[in-house]
Amino acid sequence: MTISKNQPAVAFQGTHYAFSEIAARQFFGSEIQTVPCRSFADVFSSVQNGDSDFGILPVENSLTGSIYQNLDLFLESTVSITGETSIRVEQHLIANPGVKIADIKIVYSHPQALEQCRNFLASMPHIETIASYDTAGSVKDIRDKQMLHAAAIASRQAAKDYNMQIIREEIEDIPENYTRFYIISKAAQTFNNADKTSIVFSMKNIPGALFKSLSVFALRDIDLLKIESRPLRGKPWEYFFYLDFAGNMQEERCRNAIRHLEEITSFLKVLGSYKSAGE
Amino acid sequence: MTISKNQPAVAFQGTHYAFSEIAARQFFGSEIQTVPCRSFADVFSSVQNGDSDFGILPVENSLTGSIYQNLDLFLESTVSITGETSIRVEQHLIANPGVKIADIKIVYSHPQALEQCRNFLASMPHIETIASYDTAGSVKDIRDKQMLHAAAIASRQAAKDYNMQIIREEIEDIPENYTRFYIISKAAQTFNNADKTSIVFSMKNIPGALFKSLSVFALRDIDLLKIESRPLRGKPWEYFFYLDFAGNMQEERCRNAIRHLEEITSFLKVLGSYKSAGE
Repeated sequence: MTISKNQPAVAFQGTHYAFSEIAARQFFGSEIQTVPCRSFADVFSSVQNGDSDFGILPVENSLTGSIYQNLDLFLESTVSITGETSIRVEQHLIANPGVKIADIKIVYSHPQALEQCRNFLASMPHIETIASYDTAGSVKDIRDKQMLHAAAIASRQAAKDYNMQIIREEIEDIPENYTRFYIISKAAQTFNNADKTSIVFSMKNIPGALFKSLSVFALRDIDLLKIESRPLRGKPWEYFFYLDFAGNMQEERCRNAIRHLEEITSFLKVLGSYKSAGE
Repeated sequence: MTISKNQPAVAFQGTHYAFSEIAARQFFGSEIQTVPCRSFADVFSSVQNGDSDFGILPVENSLTGSIYQNLDLFLESTVSITGETSIRVEQHLIANPGVKIADIKIVYSHPQALEQCRNFLASMPHIETIASYDTAGSVKDIRDKQMLHAAAIASRQAAKDYNMQIIREEIEDIPENYTRFYIISKAAQTFNNADKTSIVFSMKNIPGALFKSLSVFALRDIDLLKIESRPLRGKPWEYFFYLDFAGNMQEERCRNAIRHLEEITSFLKVLGSYKSAGE
């Protein structure tokens, strides 16, 4: 993806050195201005209002699954997905200099990071875990408050940039730990190399609706890459389906599949076509 | 479902008066002995070890979606689903007697309950929310510690049983708020009135595998009720699929569909056939 504008502003959730910021620099290069946001919803509004040119949002971790909150937020927003990137996530146990592992009574981190280190934390049952709003922010917190009985779980970069000490390296349960991020922008942009499209839909109440909705792709030899269901708020046990397929909306067979899908859906939104990140 | 044994022991996650315990009494009647467990994993092991006759586990909320942790735990366990029940969840803001809404600086509750009251909490931005391990336990906590600037979000029953005060009623975003629970037991039991079956599988790496896996049901006029995907830990961007369909494993067409499905799956497990709860 070529960004023409000098130093585009990219909104991300968390404080500096969070995984989202690392992913943003991987995708755009270093010549960007990063805009920290308190919440994922704030990233969406920053892009929608035009305060930022792009936003970056984690959408899935290969161990813990989709970041469902971000899928849900796409329903309320008009932003488009214009890119995707993926980073390997290494989690480290980080504390103030001089602190030893035996001193630690509390571990702070984002719930996703705590979940990724479930086995390590289970091996230390005397330690209390407390969920915080991001990984790097937890490192900053225990530094600012000079907490000597606490540690944070975060990236190597966060330890380095806050001059903190890694007391146990790579504590994630499984080293194949990747997080995928979407790049969002206000206007839809489909680049020629786009090979993946994300949509969200809900179905009419007709027999075999789910099977029929997947048929529109199979009948046109379009590969399905992912399907995820989320509740339709206010209609118990009905769902929105988030679906990724191989292809982009400039291809006729994809446009035909979507037109066919509209016959059996009560709601359908194309979130964007973009170049997939691979692993 | 007829329970022959007198006072069966039913394991649930949380402290007494948690929604899971309320659901257990709705399903079994009052003549049960309830066994509080610290975590969902503990509910699974209590049943698997034979310490409890049954377990009850929340699996889905109609607003916030599946309780993914419990879906994941079924992979590691050999217990079976033998029943299902569903309750309407009303969330109330509960505090110590005499405390007024203006006094409150912190609200404690289970993350799912906080999520269900997102709009209410957003309308009070000066209040900090802290995730706790269950709803009723939060009420007990603020009572035991006599916290006068804190409130908990929990059921009416929890307020009543701990002699605490409801200071704002029904603060959930959407009144159509239901939670579904599975009843689990050590041995599989299929009752004659079972009308629903849950399975989990992963697919061989063949073109159109997901479409083909749903075809085995469509070809036999078996209705799909739900599909959910979860990450296959250690194989980035591959998935387990949790699928519910209408029918039970004593029916020949269902057994045929499962045999057909085995041709295209690398892993398949029938979690159980049971009577569906309806709403």
